[in-house]
Amino acid sequence: MNRKRLGRQTVALSNPPAVIASANIGGSMEGRGPLGQWFDEWNEDSFFGQKTWEKAESFMQKQALRRALDRAGLSAEQLDYVFAGDLLNQCIGTSFGLREFGIPFYGLYGACSTMGESLALAALTIDGGFAERCAAMTSSHFCTAERQYRMPVPYGSQRTPTAQWTATAAGCTILAADGDGPRVTHVTCGKIVDKGITDASNMGAAMAPAAYDTLRAFFRETNTAPDDYDRVVTGDLGELGHGIVRDFFARDGIDLGENFLDCGLLLYDRKGQDMHAGGSGCGCSASVFNGYLLDQLRRGVWRRIVFAPTGALLSPTSSFQGESVPGICHAVAVCA
Amino acid sequence: MNRKRLGRQTVALSNPPAVIASANIGGSMEGRGPLGQWFDEWNEDSFFGQKTWEKAESFMQKQALRRALDRAGLSAEQLDYVFAGDLLNQCIGTSFGLREFGIPFYGLYGACSTMGESLALAALTIDGGFAERCAAMTSSHFCTAERQYRMPVPYGSQRTPTAQWTATAAGCTILAADGDGPRVTHVTCGKIVDKGITDASNMGAAMAPAAYDTLRAFFRETNTAPDDYDRVVTGDLGELGHGIVRDFFARDGIDLGENFLDCGLLLYDRKGQDMHAGGSGCGCSASVFNGYLLDQLRRGVWRRIVFAPTGALLSPTSSFQGESVPGICHAVAVCA
Repeated sequence: MNRKRLGRQTVALSNPPAVIASANIGGSMEGRGPLGQWFDEWNEDSFFGQKTWEKAESFMQKQALRRALDRAGLSAEQLDYVFAGDLLNQCIGTSFGLREFGIPFYGLYGACSTMGESLALAALTIDGGFAERCAAMTSSHFCTAERQYRMPVPYGSQRTPTAQWTATAAGCTILAADGDGPRVTHVTCGKIVDKGITDASNMGAAMAPAAYDTLRAFFRETNTAPDDYDRVVTGDLGELGHGIVRDFFARDGIDLGENFLDCGLLLYDRKGQDMHAGGSGCGCSASVFNGYLLDQLRRGVWRRIVFAPTGALLSPTSSFQGESVPGICHAVAVCA
Repeated sequence: MNRKRLGRQTVALSNPPAVIASANIGGSMEGRGPLGQWFDEWNEDSFFGQKTWEKAESFMQKQALRRALDRAGLSAEQLDYVFAGDLLNQCIGTSFGLREFGIPFYGLYGACSTMGESLALAALTIDGGFAERCAAMTSSHFCTAERQYRMPVPYGSQRTPTAQWTATAAGCTILAADGDGPRVTHVTCGKIVDKGITDASNMGAAMAPAAYDTLRAFFRETNTAPDDYDRVVTGDLGELGHGIVRDFFARDGIDLGENFLDCGLLLYDRKGQDMHAGGSGCGCSASVFNGYLLDQLRRGVWRRIVFAPTGALLSPTSSFQGESVPGICHAVAVCA
């Protein structure tokens, strides 16, 4: 066993890279939600001044990266790699968003776990000595996701009670070998977990077993307990999925307590904004992490968190063909 | 500059990981082509015994990984990570192919550059000391790609002369810190390059500038020339794209010569099998690398090659919305 590997899934970084800058951007629902003050910018216009919603999603990634670079005082040329992806077919939100920057790019597909996956790979790449500075980034857009996965928004389809609301948002983190900021200390890579859920409108339930699997591996391999962290935050399990993970841990005799949160439950007003089971989408955990969560760490409100975004690895085609919904969850520990 | 980084895009691996095993699988066109003897298995049935072509593509990935693990004498539990992705929406070829293995998984989207991207990240992860053994894998299927990107095969659509034929194939490489086999010595990460090509039936032309950009960076940063390698092999530029890269280098006064090959031009019989501009798809370069190319290195016919698969980062939606086709190319150097 290599000294850096604590177990099958978890790596303890030898020189934990610092979050030297971050940025996020949202739509009107996100800007008007309870985390509105933690958005760097948000827009009333779901098109963000572009001609299509897909171009709007690319625009959000571009803005998030530009703003994060500005904050870090870096030019695009000073960034070694970008790790990014999104939910759109062939990840066009990312490809077209990044096109003009000319930064070496590793494209990812981790569904809504992408913020965790990109942070994990960016941290490993820096800790391995292959880069000084990397960006991790992702996005989602309510209207592009509805059109692609369900029905075009103008159809006005009814949503089921277990459905979640895909966030219109993007987030970007810049990690660096040197510099000040919260540090990524551990990375836990997820496995694909499929417990046979076939309801594509209940992704929280489909992803919960993956969240449980990765968080359990994280605590076991780091020899820590949920109590050792100020917050343990999943990505977009929503009300149902989040409750399932809590139940799974309770069966193991572990109470996740009040500090167990979910970005999908934080992003919107659960009463005033009717999002059913909660928020979802790559942009949900990306915008919450790159706004509210990092701010609490920077201001010293929290010292140590686990950030564990989950993804549902389905497609409309796999659902049409009767397949169940596999999930995955990648976790990172971040210390102030 | 870190000692491992030779330049902005290229890393020289300190302890080049070895290819300890590889496997590939193809369809009937691939099995009957000039590289047929280098396929571990190929099937007359485009469904590979499955109910749908998408499930067939997942089956190919499963088979390739199983066979590579068998060859390496490893169980799935002994593999630290899999880096994989494919062309299908939400990369379901990979998710459903890998589902039963329970191996920590980083999902990628690099379009047809995925074999290069997955090899690059697997090599970096091992060289960084984060893993002992990683798999790099990808696939494509003619019928799933036609249905998704163009027209369902039963429609019998005419193909344009510049069109390429998506390979029905998968390939898997197992890299290890210790062991015997050809070694990955250098990794060059590509940038997104978009020269404004809007013809989605001429992907070779769209990807050629990215191949030129990455290969030029590779030679410059490693301080080598094409002549220093027994073969320089692109992924699936096809006849047009390959010629364009040759022309670009010629303008720089560099003759790529007879050793400049393309997997898309090797996989099929250019006269007997009418594939128009050549083969394409993630499975094209994956199956050629994990069959013919590695075999030549193992047998000592070649000592040193550059393998540089290219990807076109478009989607049908981006084309419908008038976007051009951005390309990317990731390169690895492999020594016997």
